[in-house]
Amino acid sequence: MNKSLPNRAIEWQERKLILLDQRRLPAETKFLVIDSASEASNAIRDMVVRGAPAIGITAGYGVVLSAISCQQLPHHQACEQIERDINNLAAARPTAVNLHWALQRMRDCLHNHAKDWLPALEQEAIAIQQEDIDANKTMGRLGAQFLYKQCKVMTHCNAGALATGGYGTALGVIRTAFANQKLQKVVACETRPWLQGSRLTAWELTQEKIPVELICDSAAASVLRERKIDWVIVGADRVAANGDVANKIGTCGLAILARHLGTKFMVVAPSSTFDLDCVNGDAIKIEVRQSEEVTHFAQQSLTSPEVSAWNPVFDITPANLIDVLVCEKGVIERPNRQRIAQILNK
Amino acid sequence: MNKSLPNRAIEWQERKLILLDQRRLPAETKFLVIDSASEASNAIRDMVVRGAPAIGITAGYGVVLSAISCQQLPHHQACEQIERDINNLAAARPTAVNLHWALQRMRDCLHNHAKDWLPALEQEAIAIQQEDIDANKTMGRLGAQFLYKQCKVMTHCNAGALATGGYGTALGVIRTAFANQKLQKVVACETRPWLQGSRLTAWELTQEKIPVELICDSAAASVLRERKIDWVIVGADRVAANGDVANKIGTCGLAILARHLGTKFMVVAPSSTFDLDCVNGDAIKIEVRQSEEVTHFAQQSLTSPEVSAWNPVFDITPANLIDVLVCEKGVIERPNRQRIAQILNK
Repeated sequence: MNKSLPNRAIEWQERKLILLDQRRLPAETKFLVIDSASEASNAIRDMVVRGAPAIGITAGYGVVLSAISCQQLPHHQACEQIERDINNLAAARPTAVNLHWALQRMRDCLHNHAKDWLPALEQEAIAIQQEDIDANKTMGRLGAQFLYKQCKVMTHCNAGALATGGYGTALGVIRTAFANQKLQKVVACETRPWLQGSRLTAWELTQEKIPVELICDSAAASVLRERKIDWVIVGADRVAANGDVANKIGTCGLAILARHLGTKFMVVAPSSTFDLDCVNGDAIKIEVRQSEEVTHFAQQSLTSPEVSAWNPVFDITPANLIDVLVCEKGVIERPNRQRIAQILNK
Repeated sequence: MNKSLPNRAIEWQERKLILLDQRRLPAETKFLVIDSASEASNAIRDMVVRGAPAIGITAGYGVVLSAISCQQLPHHQACEQIERDINNLAAARPTAVNLHWALQRMRDCLHNHAKDWLPALEQEAIAIQQEDIDANKTMGRLGAQFLYKQCKVMTHCNAGALATGGYGTALGVIRTAFANQKLQKVVACETRPWLQGSRLTAWELTQEKIPVELICDSAAASVLRERKIDWVIVGADRVAANGDVANKIGTCGLAILARHLGTKFMVVAPSSTFDLDCVNGDAIKIEVRQSEEVTHFAQQSLTSPEVSAWNPVFDITPANLIDVLVCEKGVIERPNRQRIAQILNK
């Protein structure tokens, strides 16, 4: 890493994967050089990189690293080794479907190229990232159409450049609205326990001078009641065929509050986040992480040693609480199975 | 403090006020000796002691400390000095009405005793605390009637022995239900930013072996949806004449979620917490504390230096979201102005 500093959270440089270590932000801007599939898998599991599209992109490069390690082998032997690495990458985190989607693309690419499979895989991984950035920009434009002048937006977790190939899903809409002078300010929920709101979203927005105010997650109802928020805008980790959305824990609560208090609710997610094999939210596996993420902070215990926490890191927002679902293929108002199938199969 | 350790968070010993420093729990059990009204006022403002009833009790003893400091003065001169201290105590925190209620009782007592006013004030302050404990036990019994076998309860913040003269309001109901074998477990919201749930409620409950599980505040919707909570039970900092309730930030959100997801919502508050001069929640002043309580943890910044947080520490739950309001004078189901007036004027 003695060359130029990457300007994205995920960069592919000279056949190495460079990841911004998101666990250390904003105190420290540190990049990790990842040069094996198992390191890529660990980086996903340990949340060096997080956010559904970013996880998918990282996994794609992870497969290229696997391919590099066996480039001298004949195709069928390489396939076996790469398949093992793909399975290991797939197991790193359970909820975001982009991981499986990206790995399936890489697997298909590998099997379709009996020759020159390494450059083909490398091109495919780069394409996954570039397509994600393009999709984000399209979604930014589509979503921002629903915002009008002096709009106030609330967001949860980080669905920004850090969570994607670049630009962002929810923050892509916010960025576009800001560029079009439609945005008054963003209220960012801090997003316990990992504080993606404080550490990542607030940091991302201040980099671009987008006005942001932080709140505790539990202050959302007060803000929605008193501060006249126009839109709650979030990303997604998986969208089921009926429009139920898995996203960061707290999202479902925000959707209920928004509906009760008369605020519109928008979900922004690329087509890679849709899982049409999932009939509804009940079929989505919700990751439960360690109790210590809640009971401790910076190795310091916040409670009695005998107390443990239940720490589900995603929840399911029912489709009927979503006003607008934005994907790069189009906008789905009041999402349901039929409208989603129509847009996704375009 | 070389005598016996206090067994309550607020104790009056040998004309000194002994306060358990709640900022240091549960890591450290440290008691502070308070021997002036201004120290009592600082202890309230700096949250050495918190919880509406506990603040009122502390203020009562603060007035006694003021009286001790001017016991040699003639009554009218003492009144002047004590009145200044009362005003200072009243300004320590704005939202909880118990502070004003207790100070008014002390003021009335002072003016009613031209002679022997110091012992009279001391007796009055002790009575305020004892009556609070008695009220808690009555409310525990009244509230627990609504709970049945194997009940699962969610609570927010700390409305326990630490927040009151002893025993607790919401936790008083929980203690009584547990003693009567009606309670399966308590889910405690961690309660950002001050973490009263992690630090105080979980600690209090484990002291008595009451099963408790901690969650991030934002996980409440998931828990209510999936874990079949029977009751959300909370305390209050002020109850308006129409039944609107000011309580810890996050309470209103929980009440909306509970209503949406079919869980019952109970508020437990002694009559000293009712403010019949407040027509409704809009008339209650909500304390907004420093941004740093949200942006920092243990002096460590959690976000970019230019980011600030809006940190309201209470919110207003509309009366129509409350199923049961328990006070020591009786139970008010579906509270409204008329039902509250009936019970309060008993």
